[in-house]
Amino acid sequence: MASDRYNTQILLPEPTLRRLPWYLSYIDILAADGVATVSSTRIARALSVDASQIAKDLSFLNIKGKTRIGYDVEDLRRALTSFLGFRTAHNAFICGVGSLGEALIRDRGLSNYGLNIVAGFDVKPRLIGTEICHVPIFHPDDMKARQSACQASIGILTVPVRQAQDVADNMVAAGIKAIWNFTPYRVRVRDGIVLANTSIYAHLAIIYNRLNSIGGGALK
Amino acid sequence: MASDRYNTQILLPEPTLRRLPWYLSYIDILAADGVATVSSTRIARALSVDASQIAKDLSFLNIKGKTRIGYDVEDLRRALTSFLGFRTAHNAFICGVGSLGEALIRDRGLSNYGLNIVAGFDVKPRLIGTEICHVPIFHPDDMKARQSACQASIGILTVPVRQAQDVADNMVAAGIKAIWNFTPYRVRVRDGIVLANTSIYAHLAIIYNRLNSIGGGALK
Repeated sequence: MASDRYNTQILLPEPTLRRLPWYLSYIDILAADGVATVSSTRIARALSVDASQIAKDLSFLNIKGKTRIGYDVEDLRRALTSFLGFRTAHNAFICGVGSLGEALIRDRGLSNYGLNIVAGFDVKPRLIGTEICHVPIFHPDDMKARQSACQASIGILTVPVRQAQDVADNMVAAGIKAIWNFTPYRVRVRDGIVLANTSIYAHLAIIYNRLNSIGGGALK
Repeated sequence: MASDRYNTQILLPEPTLRRLPWYLSYIDILAADGVATVSSTRIARALSVDASQIAKDLSFLNIKGKTRIGYDVEDLRRALTSFLGFRTAHNAFICGVGSLGEALIRDRGLSNYGLNIVAGFDVKPRLIGTEICHVPIFHPDDMKARQSACQASIGILTVPVRQAQDVADNMVAAGIKAIWNFTPYRVRVRDGIVLANTSIYAHLAIIYNRLNSIGGGALK
């Protein structure tokens, strides 16, 4: 499969990994419009990113543009989607099926980006044994057994702050390799475990602070 | 009100604004446990942040710890919550009531952090005139009229990539001062408008890449 050529063992700089999805979403629009080729200059103009930066980022993909023509839109789209891992299904557990946890299970958009939530875990008796959008909910004690059956690599953390560290530890003990932390708590993991924080509430704090300050401005 | 003393026109460094919610969530746990005082050393140990960094971050709050005793937990908690803007209601519109948009409306957690979603907008006829968790959904053409009634300062962007820039422009034209962009598209705004990107899909790309690379490691 072509996708195996990409996305293997190249540890990309985080800023590059943050920019590549911008390029992909722009390329998606061009593809939908039937545009056949695109230059890095055109991408640069649309996204306000330096053209040489774009060329450098795309060089990781092992895809070459043609002089004076640019990149083939369909090739570039396929290469970006594969390279970013969005074409491969990654099994995930979600711990904490409260308001945010349920919302993430219901967000079908995530599956378009390769995230396959296979099970939810919660201590609330009224949730255990139910399904949300076909995702079964279990008691946390069943995590190891579910892991044997599902081989999940990603654990989404949406528990209350107070349980965050313990639940992260339990997920790692059950064999989870990456913790995606949505709680405002600073969870720690041992070496060799991937930790990504999506700090929704930190972003709110930044927005409020910038709104109250004079001027505003762009944030990362 | 005490809260007015904080959170006004001090443009804080973004790393500080990202760390303060960590402190708050830890302090919340201490408060629930009935702990009366806490030193920056203790916070440092719990969160693996340098103690001098914590003291520096907290110095923005105009709150002083006592030598050999530390900070009063309740005072610190109140100060952090106010300073971060979580005690003030900020009215917000949400544009794009698809899967993620609806999920954010349903996430009651956001209201605990001062975000008050007052209206949703979508072009789908079956949604217009309905309510989701008491949030009414309107056609985007009604945004200016709703803005007169609601005075929303924040616009949450959860539309498809293709509409992202146009809808952001429309929100700014309607008087929105801050765009919270959940799309993978790189939206641009004029000077004086706050832009915050919560790049859920970029985080997924980073997780996938780190999982495929050897070793893993902590991400921001």
